[in-house]
Amino acid sequence: MAQNWQSLAADKRRRQQECIPKDWLISVPSDTVLDVRDVPEKCGLLTRRELEITNTTDVAVLLKKLATSEWSSVEVTTAFYKRAIIAHQLVNCLTEIFVERALARAAELDKYLKETGKIVGLLHGLPISLKDQICMKGLETTMGYVSWIGKYADHDAALVEILYASGAVPFVRTNVPQTLMWPETFNNIFGRTTNPANRSLTSGGSSGGEGALIALKGSPLGVGSDIGGSIRIPSGFNGVYGLRTSYGRVPYQGCVNSMEGQDSVPSVLGPISNSLSGIKAFMQAVIQQQPWLKDPLAVRKKWDEGAYALSEHGGGKQLCFAIMWNDGVVVPHPPVTRALEMTKNALLPAGHRVVDWHPFKHADLNRTLSAIWNAGASQDYKIVTAATGEPVVSTMSPVEEVIAKGIFRPDDDGLPAYQLWRVQKLRAGLRKEYLDHWQKTAEVTGTGRPVDAIISPCAPYAAPPHGANKNTSYTMVWNTLDYVACVFPVTRVNPELDGIKPEHKFLSKADKTNHGIYDPATFQNAPVALQLVGRSLEEEAVIAMTEIVDAALKGKPSGTKPSKL
Amino acid sequence: MAQNWQSLAADKRRRQQECIPKDWLISVPSDTVLDVRDVPEKCGLLTRRELEITNTTDVAVLLKKLATSEWSSVEVTTAFYKRAIIAHQLVNCLTEIFVERALARAAELDKYLKETGKIVGLLHGLPISLKDQICMKGLETTMGYVSWIGKYADHDAALVEILYASGAVPFVRTNVPQTLMWPETFNNIFGRTTNPANRSLTSGGSSGGEGALIALKGSPLGVGSDIGGSIRIPSGFNGVYGLRTSYGRVPYQGCVNSMEGQDSVPSVLGPISNSLSGIKAFMQAVIQQQPWLKDPLAVRKKWDEGAYALSEHGGGKQLCFAIMWNDGVVVPHPPVTRALEMTKNALLPAGHRVVDWHPFKHADLNRTLSAIWNAGASQDYKIVTAATGEPVVSTMSPVEEVIAKGIFRPDDDGLPAYQLWRVQKLRAGLRKEYLDHWQKTAEVTGTGRPVDAIISPCAPYAAPPHGANKNTSYTMVWNTLDYVACVFPVTRVNPELDGIKPEHKFLSKADKTNHGIYDPATFQNAPVALQLVGRSLEEEAVIAMTEIVDAALKGKPSGTKPSKL
Repeated sequence: MAQNWQSLAADKRRRQQECIPKDWLISVPSDTVLDVRDVPEKCGLLTRRELEITNTTDVAVLLKKLATSEWSSVEVTTAFYKRAIIAHQLVNCLTEIFVERALARAAELDKYLKETGKIVGLLHGLPISLKDQICMKGLETTMGYVSWIGKYADHDAALVEILYASGAVPFVRTNVPQTLMWPETFNNIFGRTTNPANRSLTSGGSSGGEGALIALKGSPLGVGSDIGGSIRIPSGFNGVYGLRTSYGRVPYQGCVNSMEGQDSVPSVLGPISNSLSGIKAFMQAVIQQQPWLKDPLAVRKKWDEGAYALSEHGGGKQLCFAIMWNDGVVVPHPPVTRALEMTKNALLPAGHRVVDWHPFKHADLNRTLSAIWNAGASQDYKIVTAATGEPVVSTMSPVEEVIAKGIFRPDDDGLPAYQLWRVQKLRAGLRKEYLDHWQKTAEVTGTGRPVDAIISPCAPYAAPPHGANKNTSYTMVWNTLDYVACVFPVTRVNPELDGIKPEHKFLSKADKTNHGIYDPATFQNAPVALQLVGRSLEEEAVIAMTEIVDAALKGKPSGTKPSKL
Repeated sequence: MAQNWQSLAADKRRRQQECIPKDWLISVPSDTVLDVRDVPEKCGLLTRRELEITNTTDVAVLLKKLATSEWSSVEVTTAFYKRAIIAHQLVNCLTEIFVERALARAAELDKYLKETGKIVGLLHGLPISLKDQICMKGLETTMGYVSWIGKYADHDAALVEILYASGAVPFVRTNVPQTLMWPETFNNIFGRTTNPANRSLTSGGSSGGEGALIALKGSPLGVGSDIGGSIRIPSGFNGVYGLRTSYGRVPYQGCVNSMEGQDSVPSVLGPISNSLSGIKAFMQAVIQQQPWLKDPLAVRKKWDEGAYALSEHGGGKQLCFAIMWNDGVVVPHPPVTRALEMTKNALLPAGHRVVDWHPFKHADLNRTLSAIWNAGASQDYKIVTAATGEPVVSTMSPVEEVIAKGIFRPDDDGLPAYQLWRVQKLRAGLRKEYLDHWQKTAEVTGTGRPVDAIISPCAPYAAPPHGANKNTSYTMVWNTLDYVACVFPVTRVNPELDGIKPEHKFLSKADKTNHGIYDPATFQNAPVALQLVGRSLEEEAVIAMTEIVDAALKGKPSGTKPSKL
């Protein structure tokens, strides 16, 4: 019995709604209430203890309390689940909801700990949210495609197996844009995820459900994916931490995706959290489980405690950071520039050096990445959506009807493989040039080393209104280069500090456009974050250096401590 | 002034000939003399000391004598250079010859050691041969293409920079087949490289120049590349050691290649040597130089002494090897099966376990790899050869004129990128299935671990006659899977032991053909080698396990020693 795509989507939404316990429904503020960050605390659904639990943003603290049975996994999972459901009612961030299953898992973990006195693994008892592409046995994974409704996974993704082995409790799945190839979050099934700090703004994407959920403290730790910024954009737009890992450091096996088989610029998985301790705990736990024994594309490389102690960065005593004030194409809005200044001003008194980063062929790097995607992306979208005839989403704007240029071109046959190889060769050359450019900075740092890390905007603006996030060059460039990048929150848009600046000598047409759209009132409350960028497979050092920058911004003493596995 | 391709090639050959010192010319045996292995010793060109030096096949011994100034780099380089030139006159194995440049480099190293008492690096003073795709500043790199004659490199390949930093002396470049995509060695410029043990047989390819040169002890250590067997086939056919490394473990940056930008199944560089100490010294030296600071595609992964001590393989005390008697498609010739039996019989008394390896979808894996290559290969060859109109080589046979199926199809437009991605997705699935298949062997090994390594043929035969090496499935499969594989020599074809066997129940049409071409007289003298196969990025463990197998075959006590860096 054939159904049209609209009814399939409506049925899926109905089933989703039925998964929500009735007594977890709250009185939702009207759409005119933009800032909903205080609703979880004020709505009355959460007990004082549940608030204490969910307000514990430091994942290391949560893990300790779970490991010592101070808090049980059932109560921690319940608390976060309730808060996640609150968040969902506010910003529409969830896809799959499976309360009983998660609580049963939590109960097993509590039982194991009680009976053996041992934790199952480094993430014992911790609820973890997963982007709606990370398959869990028995659940649907639609990835925003109506055409994938009813596809129940017959296996867990390798990462899910690893999270189980680490003692974690996967507890919700989170919303995405159809195809994942958008930096905002909207699809034909679940609709749009909005930004909790200002619901007229985007949550970013494609891991927008994660970003919004975690910002509302509906999850202590989530997993997103990133092929052009999809972890970092929602992390930045929601003011939380997020790590873009290197190709293959976190196992991708068993996830669904767009453009599967595109091996040149793979999407990567990575953690999103309210704390850097969450980012680190995730990476340590995953790598400890030897993901290369489950995923043939996972890199056989242990967690390197020496690298975390910054052995290749002078022990972290005097680092040299390079600030990228702009990428040579678009000058960021005033709040972003202020965040860069704040960071510089925090690092200098902490004893570090700061130089300017000279962006190198960023426009070329980004054009190359787009060309690789476009070599076959439109065919992929057409074929997937053909099953139900659902439209390929052509804009993230609630009002525009414009076909977005470069994302989906229904008549595009893509490139021949040989031409794709030519593009990929160009890109390899750009990667080499960029590496040499970085190595050459040893001449100016004064540390004897090249620049230890770049500090870069995540985007040329804070979270923009829905449909307006059209510049992803500040994140894409690091995917093209396969550099590790960790997003950290710095400040919020402040109309008093972030007034409109006069026109500068524009670097490009896009720069002029970007200058024109700034108005502090539009971006009210929006978080402002930056990225710390290191080299490929430098996850350990990037986390450690972000800890140093974060501590400096918070006025805490810098320096990292050895971690215990 | 346009020249036709024939005259360009003739001019290049003339220039090559002029690079050979006149007093290094020998009286070359006629073509009817097939086995030329004793010519270097008997031709009278090499002094006793030069014979002592070049007969020192253990690279660790060479390096020690160089580091202690017992032998100078100039005399070691001179000795190997003379022997390389002898080898070249016998089997046509060289392309670029640059005696003065190499000796000047050797003299510099001697001077440095004399003046400072220090070695430059782990490969101090050692002459190293390089396949004719590894660019050296100021030299042509033709890679067998007439169209690339006159292209002088304006840079050293990253590996060459690293070899210089390690104190090595790159001293010759070695012959290849045009395009590199052949398992034999013939091109329109330099012609054919033959097998020193029997010049009617192929040297293998595409690193055939290396294989033949090293078999004649004309180089202690060489570098080849491998996208489907190009290191291992010539290593095996010439009875020397050769390591197929993982993607990115050895830097490829700055080499020329076919199908550049084909990112899915990259070609890799790796060492070829008469000793495993040569294989190990190369890998340690290269990785110590942090190739990831020169090549953006090089994996940031240090040499892992624990992995070399077999920490993930029970310390190497009782290993479980799996013998792959055939790949499920073609049963190897009797000498190969005998080599497998010899290896099994050597390992059991050494205290190791041996089980049978069940090949898993090898035909699918190989078809997938071919499909990826063919997605754009023909266009690549057409475009490169268009410059001079030289023919694309269509057979490796000196007599056949047949267009080889599947290698070059002049009218083939290849695949659209989207279709290439589909193939690449299939391949990712096969890699996962193979990984699970390997992991599952933990149930049968009795060690508590999965099989530690597979012992596999390199080919279903020893070196066949020119033009007859048409089955590369035994090597290609490990490229598709990105497994590390080390070739080690076992025996030689022996008509008394290796008689024709009666027909078996054939596994395939190819199996029947392969059975039909066997005749011990044809393969007279041909070396027989095997591969030890480990997982991706397990170079350290694969070298250590090959040492164990090699020692067992030689009746030496097994077990590895910690190496000193």
